[in-house]
Amino acid sequence: MTQSKIPDIIISRLPIYLRALRHMQGQGKQTTSSQELGEWVGVSAAQIRKDLSQFGEFGKQGTGYNIAFLIKKLNEIMHIDRVWDVAVVGMGDMGHAIARYQGFADRGFRVAMLFDSDPAKIGEEIDGFVVRDSAQMVPAIQQAGIRIAMLCVPASAAQAVANQLVQAGVKAILNYAPISLTVPPGVRVQYLDPSIGLQRMTYYLE
Amino acid sequence: MTQSKIPDIIISRLPIYLRALRHMQGQGKQTTSSQELGEWVGVSAAQIRKDLSQFGEFGKQGTGYNIAFLIKKLNEIMHIDRVWDVAVVGMGDMGHAIARYQGFADRGFRVAMLFDSDPAKIGEEIDGFVVRDSAQMVPAIQQAGIRIAMLCVPASAAQAVANQLVQAGVKAILNYAPISLTVPPGVRVQYLDPSIGLQRMTYYLE
Repeated sequence: MTQSKIPDIIISRLPIYLRALRHMQGQGKQTTSSQELGEWVGVSAAQIRKDLSQFGEFGKQGTGYNIAFLIKKLNEIMHIDRVWDVAVVGMGDMGHAIARYQGFADRGFRVAMLFDSDPAKIGEEIDGFVVRDSAQMVPAIQQAGIRIAMLCVPASAAQAVANQLVQAGVKAILNYAPISLTVPPGVRVQYLDPSIGLQRMTYYLE
Repeated sequence: MTQSKIPDIIISRLPIYLRALRHMQGQGKQTTSSQELGEWVGVSAAQIRKDLSQFGEFGKQGTGYNIAFLIKKLNEIMHIDRVWDVAVVGMGDMGHAIARYQGFADRGFRVAMLFDSDPAKIGEEIDGFVVRDSAQMVPAIQQAGIRIAMLCVPASAAQAVANQLVQAGVKAILNYAPISLTVPPGVRVQYLDPSIGLQRMTYYLE
């Protein structure tokens, strides 16, 4: 089994499974089934078994999955059995919100650097971090070896900043700007697009 | 064909297809193929053909899909061939960012009401809207017939506010709080969770 053979679409479902499993664990549950997990996340039980089987044998016929064990395995598979430093670029409303976001703890990430190009924002302290000048972004990210960035700049600036992030060695960009980014092979972009979330629900509204 | 028979997982992919198609259209393209669209969104061509075939026959063998036509059809299927009013609850950093977000135009949504419980924020004007008192939220949403809300309150308040939104008749909640919500049948929740976006990329990082 080589990792590169596993379809992106399966990888994209793993974090959803993980979130559901953590929620079950938070409720005190110890085991679950592909049926139960599937109902939780809106995926068929067969699909869940098929997805997880790409990575090994995690459940037992009849007894289901041990939740703690499956969480541990998913963390390992997704490489979040460590903490990744993340740079946040753009300290507008969204950047501020991200810098203060309490949801990264125990999820594998830590906001490590904040950047903005606005002299009025450079030097501002947010949750113990000082906003740095974007002009120093490329060397600072390179030196720190940061591979992950969250892009919170306006749409008009997003591509140019993404190019700089790529130059700095960033391989994974979470993009909040309402614009599609072009990046070279080997760099991944995920979009945090509220319209997508809303459009997933309007189908069900009369 | 009844709509209720179409799996949620297929519905959840439609907004992704739509975004890619709109991006292609923005680049001046007129037609595309399931192959090309698939490469764009990281889904197999066969899956795209299967997904779209749930709703009718949109492409022609050999000539592919007319992009403008497929966009129009997807808008109809997802009920975003209209504009939905959306209430935003919680005017912290994230609520502010959402209230000012420029990405809803032409996507089917319009921010219509803002709420907060903090007296310091009530009455504040953001992009032409005055922040209202959350104490008036239930009757205000009921009277306006709003069905969609974005929840930007702290995790500790999210479930209580969600309960009020449900009471007010909201059927679709986009939740920014890092917490899983419990809602009655017939109400849908989507999570805008930056950790999920990041975890979809760390798999590919060494």
